[in-house]
Parts: sequence; C-alpha cells; structure tokens
Amino acid sequence: MERKAVTVGIIGTGFMGKAHAEGYQLFDITVGMFASRTLKNAGSAAEQFGVERWTDNWLELVQDPQIDCVDITVPNHLHYEIAMACIKAGKPFLIEKPLARNTEEGEEIVRAAKEKGIVAVYAENMRFKPALVRTKQLVDEGAFGNILMLRSNEIHNGPFHAPWFWDAKLTGGGAAIDMGIHGVNTLEWIMGSKIKRVYAETGVLKWSEQCKNGAEDTAMAVLRFENGGMAELAISWAISGGMDVRLEVFGTEGTAYVSTTHEAGGLKIYSNKGYGRPLEVEASQKPHVVDTKGWSFPAPKDVMQQGHAFEVKHFIDCVRGLAQPSSTLEDGLRSLAVIEAMYESAAKGIAVEL
Amino acid sequence: MERKAVTVGIIGTGFMGKAHAEGYQLFDITVGMFASRTLKNAGSAAEQFGVERWTDNWLELVQDPQIDCVDITVPNHLHYEIAMACIKAGKPFLIEKPLARNTEEGEEIVRAAKEKGIVAVYAENMRFKPALVRTKQLVDEGAFGNILMLRSNEIHNGPFHAPWFWDAKLTGGGAAIDMGIHGVNTLEWIMGSKIKRVYAETGVLKWSEQCKNGAEDTAMAVLRFENGGMAELAISWAISGGMDVRLEVFGTEGTAYVSTTHEAGGLKIYSNKGYGRPLEVEASQKPHVVDTKGWSFPAPKDVMQQGHAFEVKHFIDCVRGLAQPSSTLEDGLRSLAVIEAMYESAAKGIAVEL
Amino acid sequence: MERKAVTVGIIGTGFMGKAHAEGYQLFDITVGMFASRTLKNAGSAAEQFGVERWTDNWLELVQDPQIDCVDITVPNHLHYEIAMACIKAGKPFLIEKPLARNTEEGEEIVRAAKEKGIVAVYAENMRFKPALVRTKQLVDEGAFGNILMLRSNEIHNGPFHAPWFWDAKLTGGGAAIDMGIHGVNTLEWIMGSKIKRVYAETGVLKWSEQCKNGAEDTAMAVLRFENGGMAELAISWAISGGMDVRLEVFGTEGTAYVSTTHEAGGLKIYSNKGYGRPLEVEASQKPHVVDTKGWSFPAPKDVMQQGHAFEVKHFIDCVRGLAQPSSTLEDGLRSLAVIEAMYESAAKGIAVEL
Amino acid sequence: MERKAVTVGIIGTGFMGKAHAEGYQLFDITVGMFASRTLKNAGSAAEQFGVERWTDNWLELVQDPQIDCVDITVPNHLHYEIAMACIKAGKPFLIEKPLARNTEEGEEIVRAAKEKGIVAVYAENMRFKPALVRTKQLVDEGAFGNILMLRSNEIHNGPFHAPWFWDAKLTGGGAAIDMGIHGVNTLEWIMGSKIKRVYAETGVLKWSEQCKNGAEDTAMAVLRFENGGMAELAISWAISGGMDVRLEVFGTEGTAYVSTTHEAGGLKIYSNKGYGRPLEVEASQKPHVVDTKGWSFPAPKDVMQQGHAFEVKHFIDCVRGLAQPSSTLEDGLRSLAVIEAMYESAAKGIAVEL
Repeated sequence: MERKAVTVGIIGTGFMGKAHAEGYQLFDITVGMFASRTLKNAGSAAEQFGVERWTDNWLELVQDPQIDCVDITVPNHLHYEIAMACIKAGKPFLIEKPLARNTEEGEEIVRAAKEKGIVAVYAENMRFKPALVRTKQLVDEGAFGNILMLRSNEIHNGPFHAPWFWDAKLTGGGAAIDMGIHGVNTLEWIMGSKIKRVYAETGVLKWSEQCKNGAEDTAMAVLRFENGGMAELAISWAISGGMDVRLEVFGTEGTAYVSTTHEAGGLKIYSNKGYGRPLEVEASQKPHVVDTKGWSFPAPKDVMQQGHAFEVKHFIDCVRGLAQPSSTLEDGLRSLAVIEAMYESAAKGIAVEL
Repeated sequence: MERKAVTVGIIGTGFMGKAHAEGYQLFDITVGMFASRTLKNAGSAAEQFGVERWTDNWLELVQDPQIDCVDITVPNHLHYEIAMACIKAGKPFLIEKPLARNTEEGEEIVRAAKEKGIVAVYAENMRFKPALVRTKQLVDEGAFGNILMLRSNEIHNGPFHAPWFWDAKLTGGGAAIDMGIHGVNTLEWIMGSKIKRVYAETGVLKWSEQCKNGAEDTAMAVLRFENGGMAELAISWAISGGMDVRLEVFGTEGTAYVSTTHEAGGLKIYSNKGYGRPLEVEASQKPHVVDTKGWSFPAPKDVMQQGHAFEVKHFIDCVRGLAQPSSTLEDGLRSLAVIEAMYESAAKGIAVEL
Repeated sequence: MERKAVTVGIIGTGFMGKAHAEGYQLFDITVGMFASRTLKNAGSAAEQFGVERWTDNWLELVQDPQIDCVDITVPNHLHYEIAMACIKAGKPFLIEKPLARNTEEGEEIVRAAKEKGIVAVYAENMRFKPALVRTKQLVDEGAFGNILMLRSNEIHNGPFHAPWFWDAKLTGGGAAIDMGIHGVNTLEWIMGSKIKRVYAETGVLKWSEQCKNGAEDTAMAVLRFENGGMAELAISWAISGGMDVRLEVFGTEGTAYVSTTHEAGGLKIYSNKGYGRPLEVEASQKPHVVDTKGWSFPAPKDVMQQGHAFEVKHFIDCVRGLAQPSSTLEDGLRSLAVIEAMYESAAKGIAVEL
Repeated sequence: MERKAVTVGIIGTGFMGKAHAEGYQLFDITVGMFASRTLKNAGSAAEQFGVERWTDNWLELVQDPQIDCVDITVPNHLHYEIAMACIKAGKPFLIEKPLARNTEEGEEIVRAAKEKGIVAVYAENMRFKPALVRTKQLVDEGAFGNILMLRSNEIHNGPFHAPWFWDAKLTGGGAAIDMGIHGVNTLEWIMGSKIKRVYAETGVLKWSEQCKNGAEDTAMAVLRFENGGMAELAISWAISGGMDVRLEVFGTEGTAYVSTTHEAGGLKIYSNKGYGRPLEVEASQKPHVVDTKGWSFPAPKDVMQQGHAFEVKHFIDCVRGLAQPSSTLEDGLRSLAVIEAMYESAAKGIAVEL
C-alpha cells in the first residue's frame, strides 16, 4: 500500500544531517526544509539534496506548518532546547544520540514528551543496522541458547569532523558518551537484561591537546547484567586503521561475530541448534544451502544483500518514468549469447569467438 | 518527492516471486495480484504478502486494467510466451534471468519490445547488489587503474527448490545458463569491454541422476575481452558449504575481493591511488577514517550498512501511525545513565551499581 | 652447527605431554623416558613416540642419570613437588603453566631454583607462537607507535579432557588460572609495562555441575598498566564454536588483529609507519610486495609459512637416508610439460591434450 | 634420535638462497659453503648466516669433499649445467623450480640422476607449506569426498628482485613458468589425477617494457583431469596488493579455502563428513573443540601454530647453554599474582592494585 505523504524538516547539516537526508531519499520521503547555524550551510545542504527551503533559524523550521515532523541532528548541548520546542509545537521528532548531555536534561525530555503524547524516536542507529537486527532475531530464536557474555567495541581515530565533540561541556563527556552510548544500549538490547554493575577505566591516551574540560579519548569497562551475564566494552577515539565497530555474542549454544565496518556487515555465526529457514530452503525439495548448525555466514537481509529489493524498486522507477533501465533486454540477450558460445566451446574443445 | 502510485502484478510464486514481493514491500510499492500455476499457490503467496487478488491464469493478470506492470518470475521455458503477451498488452515488464532459453527466443523478445516501445527491465540482480554497485563505481573512478583480470564464481549445491532447473529442455542448459548467466553479464559490466573469445569445460560431476537432456552441473571457462583483459568463471551446482558468490577484480593500480554471500557483502580493496571521500571525511578537519590508499574494507552503502536509512524510514512510519517507536526516549535516557555510572566508576575506582 | 645431544624426560602423558613430545620429534631431540601415573599410560605414550623407557614413578625419571633435563606437564597440584625435586636433583626443567596453584608455592620454586642455579623455562607457549612473536617484534620496531589498548581472549567450551581442571583445590581456581594465566602474561609482554590495577567479574555461567570448590567458568577483567595503557581480558570455558584465542593491539600509529586459532595464525595489521623489509624487498630493484604502511597481512614467519624450512629439512633427511624424496625430479619435469602445453594452447587458440 | 651430521653447500645468494639458509639454521643443519657469481655476494651471504667458506666458482663448491650435498638456487638457465655437475660428482642435490627451462633439459637431468642413483629433491615448496600439507591429508582422509573442482592462483606485482626473471631466453617463459609451475604441480597433487587437457590465454597486460623475448606477465587456464575433474589457474605478475597465493578445493562432500599469504596460512573448511581428531579430543571425556562437520578453521599444524614445538626447542637450547630462558619462572609467578588479584577483585567488587 502506498502510504500517506509526510514532510520532514532536518535541523543540522553536518555528517549526520546529510546521512539522514540520504536515507529519506532512498525511501522517497520528502525533506521539506533544512536548518543550520548559517544560511550558507543550510542552503548548500538543500541544494545537494534537492530540498526547496532552508533557514538559519531552527525554531522557524519547528513551527513551520508544512513541516510535519522534525529530525534533530545538532550538537549534544542543543538537544534539550530543540526537543522541548518540538514537544511544545506538537511535532513528532527523531533525536540523535545521546539523548542529551546528562540524565537531568534527558529526564525532562522524556517526561514532557510523554505528557504531550508526542511521537518521538531515539536515533540509535545500532537498532537498525541489518547485521544487528538479524543478530537480535537469532538471539530471540534461541540460536545461541542463553546469552552469557558479550564483547563490544566502537573505535576510531577521533571526531575530527567537528570541534564540539572534544569539549565535555558541550557533550557531557568524551569517547564514552559519544561512542559508548551506542554500546551500552546495544548490550542491554542483545542481552535482554539490564546492566546492574559497571566498572570502567577512562583516560586521555593520545589526544591530550584536543580533549577539553575532562573529555576522555579512551574507555574500557566490564559490565554485569541482572541475569548474571557479563560484557566488556572498548571505546576509543585513539585508534588507527579506520572505524571498527564489532559485537561478539557468546551463548550456551552458539557464538556470533558481527562486524558492521571492516567486514561490511558480515555475520559469522556458530549455532549448536541451527536457526531460521531461508526462502530457498522453504521452497526446496532438498536443502541446497548450508545447514545453519555449526558455523555459517548469513547475510543480514537477503533481499537487500542479493539486490532484489533494489532491482524491483528500479523497475517501478522506470515504470514511473523516473529512470531508464540500467539492465536491459539486450543485456539479457548478450548474456545468452556468451553462454551459448561456452556450450559450443565445451562441445567442440576449441575456443569460440564472439 | 512522493512518487505516483504504481501497481505491479507478479507471475510466479516460487523463491524468486516471493523475494521480489518482499522487495516491493520494503519500498511501499503495491503488489496488486499474484499469478501461479495453481490457485492454491497463488492464494498462499497472496496471503503471505497481504495481496488482495490472485489467479491461476497469468494472461488474466497481464490483461487486468488495474495492473500497471508485470513481474515475470516463472521457469525459463515460459519467459518467451509471457514476455510477448506483456508486449502485446502494452505492459511494462521485469523479466527474470535468463532472458529466454536461447538467443532465438531472446532476439524476438528484444525486437518486439523495441517495436512497441515497451519499458522492460532485465532482472539481473548482480547489477543491484550494493557490493557490486560500489565496486563498479570504484572501477569507474579509477581506483584500480585499468582492469586486467577478473575472477568470478557462482557455486552452490544444486537447484533443489524446483525440478525444472535440472532439465535442459525447459531451461536451455544447466548450471551455466542458470548461474553463469549472472557471471558473464557481470564480467562485461565490470570490465567495460565485450568478451571476444571463450573456452569452456563442462561436465556432470556430481548429480548424474538429476541432470536431464544434457544439463551440466559444473562449468569452467577462460574468457578474453576485446580490450585484451582476461577472466575466468567457475560455475557449479555440485559444491558444499552454502552459496558462494564472489568477484575478484585486478587492475594495474589495485585489487578488489568482493563476496556477496559468505562474507555478507564485504569488500576488501587495495588501491594504489585511493578512492572516494565518505561524508565523514568531507565534513572533517582531519581524516579520522582510514586512508583509501592501500588495503581498505568499505561498506557497500554506508547509509544502509550503518542503519541510518532504515532508522529514518522507521521514524516516518511512526509519524504515519504505521509503527510504534522501537527505539524510545527512555532507551536514550537509560544509555545516558549507564554512561554516567561508567564515569563515576572510573573517577572513584570502584564498581558502580545501577 | 650441529648441537650437542641432550636427552629429555617427560612427566605427564596427557594432551600437553604428547604435544611436547611431538615438538621434540620435529627438531630431532631425544625423549629418553616418559613418566605417568600408570605404567599403561606411560607405555602407551612411549610406544606412540618411539621412546624406549617409561615409568609410573616420576621421581625415578627425575633422578635417572641418562635424563639430562625434565619436562613437567602434570596437573597443577603436582607442580610444586616435582619442580622442587628437579631442583634438588640439579636437573634443568620446563614447567607447564600455571607455575603452581598459588603465589606461595610459586615463590618457593623461584627461590630454590635461583639458589641452586638451575636452568628452568616457564612453559608459556604464547611466547613462542609465531604470530605473537612476530607481533612483539613489530611492537618493538614501533610499527604501532605507543601501545594504548589491548584486548585478549582465550575461550573454549571447557577442559573436558581431564577432570582435575574443574576442581579449584587441585588447580588454584577455574578458567582464569587455566586460561587467563596466558593472557595476563601476554598482555604485560606486549604492552612492555606492568599491570598496576585490575577489576574482574567472575561467575559460573554454564557448567555449574562441573565446577568444584569455587572454580569459575567465565571471567572478564579490565586492566590498567603502569604506563597508563588499558586492556580487557575475556576468559571462558562456556563458549561454543571451538577454541578462540585472539589478541588485538591498538597503538598511536597502528593496529594489529591476531588470531592463533580460527584464522590459523593470521595477522591483520594497520601501521601508519610501516614495518620490516622482507627478503624479497631487500633483494629487489622495485618493491613487488605490498607496502607495510596501511593494512597488511604478514605471515608470522615466512620461511615456515612458505614451506622453505620444511623443504630443506626434508632434503637433508633424504641425504641422511631417513626419507625418500616426496617431491621428485619427475614432478618437476611433469610441471614443465604442463606449462609448455599451456604456452602451446595460448599460441594456437586450441585446447592441448597432454 | 639425534641424526648424523650433514653439510650442505648453497649455490645462489639471492632471495631463495637466503630463504633456504634460514631454513637450515632453524633445524641446526650446517651450511658449509656459499657460491655466488661474485665473491662479494658470496661473502656477504656467508657473513649473514655465519657460514665459514664461500666462493665465486660453483664447480668448486660441487666438488668440495667437505660438502655432502648441494642446494641449487640459481637462475633457470643455469639449472641444467649445475645439476649435471652434481650428478657427475655424485652429490645429492636440491633444485629450485622450475627443474629447467624446458622439458628437453629436464628430461636429461632426470635420466642422468636415475642412471647414477643420485638422491635429488625438486624444490617445490608448495609440497611443504603446512596449510597445503594439511589440506592434502584432509583430501586423502575423504573430508571432502571426491574432488571435483580446484581453483588456484599465484599472483603478485612482478619479479623485480632480479632482471633475469623477465627474459624468456633465460627462464623458458614468463609468469606461467615462474609462478604457474607451482600451480600445476599442486593441482595434480591435490586432485590425485593427471591433467589431460589445458586451455590457456596469455598476455602482456601491464609490464610491456620489462617482458623480453616473449615472456608473458599474465596467464589464465582451464584444465581438465583424467578423472573428469576441472581446475582453473590464474597467474600474474601484474597485480597490486601483495603476493596472493590461494587454493580452493571443491569436493562432493566438502570445500576448503586455503590461503598461504594474505590470511597467513589459514584454512577455512567445510566438510559434510568431518575429519581428524585433535589430541584434545582423543584425550577428552567430551569434545570441547568444535565438530569438524560443517565449517571449521583448523591450524595447519597445531604443535607449531600453538608454539609448543618452538617452546620445547627453546628449552633444549637453554639446557645446551645456547640460549637464556625467554620465559622465566618469575614470569610464571607474576602471572599467578595477577590472577590472584583478579580473584580478589571479583570477590570484593573493587579494583585491586598490584
């Protein structure tokens, strides 16, 4: 079913504002306005994404009657004020992590949104990464038995894309509130139990010039859950080699190694019990895919991984006149001709020219 | 921009018909009807995907005025007849690989579609796999210099999901026309040059009982391109360990290893020149991601890999009242509380209870 | 230089006694005697490894004048007594990890050996794994800059090969003293600094029936070093999927991922500075191997990895009349013939029969 | 058993002469003399490896009565002459690949060695790589069923370590005779059947300036075996990203991916039947290592991979007075102290200082 039109306004035109805009585009959702600190930034983002209106006054965006809902991607210290304005304006909002600089600000946002009955989504992208969504499904299916131990890391070489990240006054902390905020949420989600005790070490190990007002660049923690499970968390802004975000899941009956960066979404899974049944197996007289007991390497989401979702979308866009076929009947014909030449070659024992 | 509504009809309710239906759902595109050989199969697929109408007469679907376009996912020997009916009915169509059983059938389809000016897409899903789309972009950017050599494989343990796959009379061949048809298309696409010579070996190495009318279960080929480049292609229905689809790209300035199965979409890339600039780098005072010269492991599509596209889509679905937030403000608050406990632990040198 | 003959006696014929015997064989070192609790076990091991003498009295082995030195591979609770007997007998000894059940026993062994000037080696096999030896060399070369953070894990599904492992009275603890003892040694070695603070969580998460007298099956720790560096350690006997032993090294200038189990010795390394120069580069006009700046995947020890060491040893064994060539001149001739056929095929554009 | 002393002489002091010298050292085998084209090169290699004698006249080395056997590591065009001199002198020899420049030379060497009954080993290092030796054992055990299909590659960026490699007059060809010579031998060895037909494409794709007298820099071939099996072979001197040597084995019952470069000796194996039994399993009440059915990641040789062989060798060297313990009793004591602190921390819920 085609769904009703909704127009979103994005506040913030940094790395995350643009990533969100690209996401809306992928699903044909209208971005109606950009707000940024300067008209130049707002206009430049609007031009890049074909957005018709922009402003340097975020309140204008929040209050604009053509904007149905608001996407907040600004620095941490502005979260509280903008979220409260959305609530006051009765506008649904998506709010970037962390919710705020501290639990005091956070509690007020939660309370006000609840009182006014505002639809709000906390922008924890870990909850939407295909590889983690699949992992959570496997945990819930029992593929790993009871979860005993988790290991999580979010490490890179520092948030040089904006100076405010390094200042604990503006953010509420350092690498832990910036990166570890993903990990603690993910760990409780995957474990299905609340953290009951934490021990952490923090320090400025590399970027002493950049880190301000008490921000740390590295943190390591051991966590204990209410269900008795354990986890460790490694967080750093001091690491070379590119962003490295992984989760390791250890249960009584299985193990999962999940990377969402270096190995590009890969899952490497061991299950004593096995799990799931791909469409191919359901449709099959006899399994032609590997058994899911033991080690296996499933795609996070087959219909995307294998391209079919994008293929059918492309077809519809062609039907709508919005695109020209990028894979044509002539392509199909050509492929047939090459295969026929292969068959002829194999039959005759000679190379065949095309 | 919200795009105009289009209703598609799917002919075929096997593995591929269902994979396509899942793809349409992901993008909120209406499937108006299913056609299958039996009313039972058609009705069962319709129920699974919430489709309101179904039939056991594919021609009825093609001619139905509420069906704007047709998705053909039936066995090879039916491609010709249905494609020609779509052309006659003036309906745009998406047609599964291979285009037909042979070039004679294929040529007629191409000619008739062109004469009638019908929009048609050849369903080569390799063209839409995010990992291969990214690879092609990198090739076009020059990340690998001139492409010299390619290696491709599409191997699994046999198409046991339907008996017609094994019969060359119905399909036009065996593993090569079934699986190799992907490879030859992909190789010409990535090389940017036509194949000018092929040498192939084919054989029935494992499934002599299943293979009928000359179908082979394994084929290997060496291919030479017009630009002088070389490739090899390994195709088999006789392989244990799960579906394994990879492409290796070797150029004068770099190398890419691409898997779209075992390593779940991963790219492993070497480039003497480097390539691209992620949003994070564009927004950065100082690169905090790894340089793309040398070895790197890029995501096929960051905005999906990292979940942001699905996150913003979820937000809009909540706004539309079609979903409840799966990541709440309370989640954000909880994460803040854990981080604060970590900071307290690190400051005091004790474990902190939550 | 051929070195002087030394005869070693092995006490213990379990998993580790046999692994050591295989190691002595590889280097043509004479094992003169086995001792075990029963004559049957001792005799069986002796037969397996071609050892001429055996005993069920370990003291007899220690005191035997033909035994030059002693290899102690018995359960933890026997370490102290046997080590002291070796010291008293003036025999050099190799002693399995952990040194003893506790630091009291351990300190006496250290003191007594020092007083008598006995050569003794602590059998920490991590110090001898080619992948870790190479990693330590790279650390010392500065390939990673200053080491900031380490992550270590030694996990498997429990020591079911002998019941004594599970009893803290006999071993001094559980998974931590069994497996973590490797990790803490390795961490200080690689960091080049002493641990100054530890925080640990321990628990019986899976094997409550097996764990006796306070033994834990899982432990996680955060460690802080005197130089300010941090580490985490994950230890478990409760994990499915096979033994998994990895070390991750993060420095100001680079990163190493080292697995000595699942990926069979592999190193995956990122270095801003680069490192080393293989023989091929030293001998080269122009580098034909990948630069060591950025990501690289070096062999732990090329001369073994690539087989040359074993090849030349085989040659000498053939010269000594102890082996027949397993790679013959006829093999070399055959290979030439195939290559010549390839050249002929390429020149003529036809397949060539051999 | 300590084996009788044998003194080897090495002809050639390039990359391979030195790699062999390092191998002899590892096993305490005496290298008595180096021969090279110049006294300077010979003397320099002798100094590097502690060899007492050297010469610029290889015949002198061959005829020297203190040299028991000869290791031939010179350019291809000298193989024939030196091998014949060894045969005439009655000296066992190890000869680098390829055996000679062509089958005519090769046949004479084979015939002459056989007539004189000379012990000779063809230096095909693939036969001695631990990862391939293990793979061959698994093939012979039936872990993969019947072998159907193989894929092999030996690729790097060109032999810039010596100019003679590029001249077909001196070598007999190009990349195929240099690198492919490994592959064809390995393929027949692993398949356990002779190649009966080859089709190849060759070309100069990158290094047209370097390639002389008909040498190619790239070759691809499809091969058919007498048992019906197939293989492909990719050979190149034109590839960026470092040396990449892999073998893929596909059988009716399993699959192996073997890399001996990028993944440092790793095996990734799928077996429907399972294989082998490590010492740990034999000694075990209950398997605590992963089942070998399905996917597994075995070490090529556990006793080396895990360091035990090198550990015991080190112990004996300490006993012989040739080394100082690199892992001491104090190290063992220290590790115990850290573990005890971990136990104390876990018991008390506080961090513990050491």
